[in-house]
Amino acid sequence: MRHERAHPDEARERAATILRSAGIAVTPEEAAGIEVTDFGLGHPEASGLQLLIYVNDERYCAKEMVLFPGQTCPEHLHPPFEGTPGKQETLRVRAGTVYLYLPGQPTPDPVAHPYRAEHYTAWHEHVLGPGDQHTIPPMTRHWFHAPDGAIVSEFSTQSRDEFDRFTDPDIVRVATGPD
Amino acid sequence: MRHERAHPDEARERAATILRSAGIAVTPEEAAGIEVTDFGLGHPEASGLQLLIYVNDERYCAKEMVLFPGQTCPEHLHPPFEGTPGKQETLRVRAGTVYLYLPGQPTPDPVAHPYRAEHYTAWHEHVLGPGDQHTIPPMTRHWFHAPDGAIVSEFSTQSRDEFDRFTDPDIVRVATGPD
Repeated sequence: MRHERAHPDEARERAATILRSAGIAVTPEEAAGIEVTDFGLGHPEASGLQLLIYVNDERYCAKEMVLFPGQTCPEHLHPPFEGTPGKQETLRVRAGTVYLYLPGQPTPDPVAHPYRAEHYTAWHEHVLGPGDQHTIPPMTRHWFHAPDGAIVSEFSTQSRDEFDRFTDPDIVRVATGPD
Repeated sequence: MRHERAHPDEARERAATILRSAGIAVTPEEAAGIEVTDFGLGHPEASGLQLLIYVNDERYCAKEMVLFPGQTCPEHLHPPFEGTPGKQETLRVRAGTVYLYLPGQPTPDPVAHPYRAEHYTAWHEHVLGPGDQHTIPPMTRHWFHAPDGAIVSEFSTQSRDEFDRFTDPDIVRVATGPD
């Protein structure tokens, strides 16, 4: 299986250590439940994300996202589903520098060079440091990259990852939960 | 004005310092916008709260709450409003120990002794340390206290404080924003 290449146990442990080093308390049960995904591309060092989900129900969702140095969360959007307008999310950077790409005038010389960049369409670069945040409406293509790694809090409406639409047709958003 | 007794500028600065000391980045604009409330009771050392609101719209809300040592957020509940079921909230402790009181079997010898305790009805004590969290449904009376101070993240549906129902009839939930 492609997902085994992500070595999820090691990634979970590494993500928990990064969170705790930043002063974010993580219980042992939470550390064991951190989601690890390589988006089905088999190159977690380039396209990958670790997620600690605090709460996710039909009313709201909150999580921490850990990007290891060099990782990108690939371009996607959140469509309407089940009578809702689709997921709205607020990304708030806790640690590190995040390059967030949104639709708009393409930034010349963008910092990020994602794996399979030919499938990316949003190239307007926003630079977010600790304490900076940005809210992304539904149906808005977005992706982000952390050259030196980052911790990002996400506050949002319900996360229903199975409805996410990735631009790259090879992406399958399946996270490996705890074994 | 009663609210002036809370010395909101000093409380704002103190809250920002506590957040930053815990590794939570706070921009200067955010620090200046921290909400300070004594719930109209004029005794912020006993009944009071400081709030850094990250986002609050009709879809979700996220904030950090700072309790100074000895402060209590008085008993209240969140009723339905404007066709919604009312506010649901998840409290997650970031730092310190929080004593959360909910309906249920009263705890003998509770830690908290709130100001105007005769107006409190929920006495089932839950002890939450860093990394612990609890989700409170609408219409559920709750209050919390931090003997040595605490930082609590709140993830929730929209906050509409003007609809909150406090048990103590003297409470007026008016926060002092920035001058």
